[in-house]
Amino acid sequence: MIQGSTGLVAILGTPIAQVQSPANFNRWFQAQGLDLAMLPVDLRADALPGFIASLRGWNNLRGCVITVPYKQAVVPLLDELSTRARLLRSVNVIRRESDGRLIGDNVDGEGFIKAAAAHGFEASGKHALVLGAGGAGAAIAYSLAEAGIATLDLADPTPGRAEALATTLQTAFPALVIRDQVAALGGYDLLVNASPIGMGEAAETPLPPAQLAELSPHAHVADVVTKPAHTPLLALAQARGCSVQAGPEMSLAQMPALGFFMGVMPESL
Amino acid sequence: MIQGSTGLVAILGTPIAQVQSPANFNRWFQAQGLDLAMLPVDLRADALPGFIASLRGWNNLRGCVITVPYKQAVVPLLDELSTRARLLRSVNVIRRESDGRLIGDNVDGEGFIKAAAAHGFEASGKHALVLGAGGAGAAIAYSLAEAGIATLDLADPTPGRAEALATTLQTAFPALVIRDQVAALGGYDLLVNASPIGMGEAAETPLPPAQLAELSPHAHVADVVTKPAHTPLLALAQARGCSVQAGPEMSLAQMPALGFFMGVMPESL
Repeated sequence: MIQGSTGLVAILGTPIAQVQSPANFNRWFQAQGLDLAMLPVDLRADALPGFIASLRGWNNLRGCVITVPYKQAVVPLLDELSTRARLLRSVNVIRRESDGRLIGDNVDGEGFIKAAAAHGFEASGKHALVLGAGGAGAAIAYSLAEAGIATLDLADPTPGRAEALATTLQTAFPALVIRDQVAALGGYDLLVNASPIGMGEAAETPLPPAQLAELSPHAHVADVVTKPAHTPLLALAQARGCSVQAGPEMSLAQMPALGFFMGVMPESL
Repeated sequence: MIQGSTGLVAILGTPIAQVQSPANFNRWFQAQGLDLAMLPVDLRADALPGFIASLRGWNNLRGCVITVPYKQAVVPLLDELSTRARLLRSVNVIRRESDGRLIGDNVDGEGFIKAAAAHGFEASGKHALVLGAGGAGAAIAYSLAEAGIATLDLADPTPGRAEALATTLQTAFPALVIRDQVAALGGYDLLVNASPIGMGEAAETPLPPAQLAELSPHAHVADVVTKPAHTPLLALAQARGCSVQAGPEMSLAQMPALGFFMGVMPESL
């Protein structure tokens, strides 16, 4: 239970009620007997610069996880960025140094790779399609490139967004084949939905169900949406015989990396 | 335990580790089965305007208790003030309306009167000395005046501070005898330390021990310092045979008023 001496970490986004991190972190803090807590912050966009600036003076705050829709917006508000965060122009975690400086990193991709590995998926030499080139999509694509994926196709409904990410990744990984396209689905070993489509009650899929019916039964299909955990995309993929990876798995798998970066968890967890 | 859907209230000050409110509020929220939590915010002074401004956009924050040293500093940062908060130029609680507007009040005095009543002290017709004319001192003095104290003496080491408070209170309570002085201690029915003197390890008293030895054994002696709860002042007063009231009693007694103002506790608690 939180008391006056409790050290804090936050998770920032809007909406926020659906995120699993506070329950997961707080369960772990409690199990370890640590005087630490994670709080959810549902913030309006116009308050973002002032809120981030005030973190510099918030002495008992160790760090802040950044989620949708602020992963890009916080980038220019920080004092220092990791190499990957700077390349991706996307931050999903901030550490507050004891002098108040704010350092940004992005461990979304680490969590994705770790969760996929738990399903037996190894990226090396494979063909992948990532839908959504926002913060999560970019981080996943970066980590897939780093893990040796053979071809990486990107798509995003926002004009130019997937192309811009492809250009950025190509610079960092010159040997990789990166395309701004959706090819025939049967050719992919991995399909990732990194867009918010499928969230909530709308029961939408990021590609038409008829197209998804072309998925290879050997493909691994992953979704970043956490609520519902079992999205319509994953239901269709499972019906095809694919292995499926739900959003909460990625969140859970990156928890140690988030906690380590903020200084509230050991590296080896 | 805090999860994504948890509604928040904060307590803001520096230092903050010593405050009892988070433990008290969180124990109550938990006992009631409410999805609410109070978090401690230890903030540097330069971050105050940005932090308060960002509360307007913090959708899952219901309100914020304000403690030392920010009770005066937040006043110009809010959208609306209660009559007493405006008069005292001191705020100890903020409610965030659903549209983001920030309303300030001061219930410090209510808590003090309630805690004193639990010791059998009734202000009507009595003679009181309040040491410290900052946020807590002003609120206590205001509530004593409202409760019908006969004479009210004020003292503060900052030049002009006690005098300014006396002038303000005299306007609101024209019939009351208010003086910027410390008279012979034997004449007081109530002595209140509303200064930080006595906090921590220094073991200081707000008046010299020799002077405190003049206290009437029938006097009620109260301290606003919460850590240690049993201050050197209270130890001396208790040795004189006085009834004594510790800082945590005042905090605890005002808890329902704070919670009600922020909309997280019923009025009748």
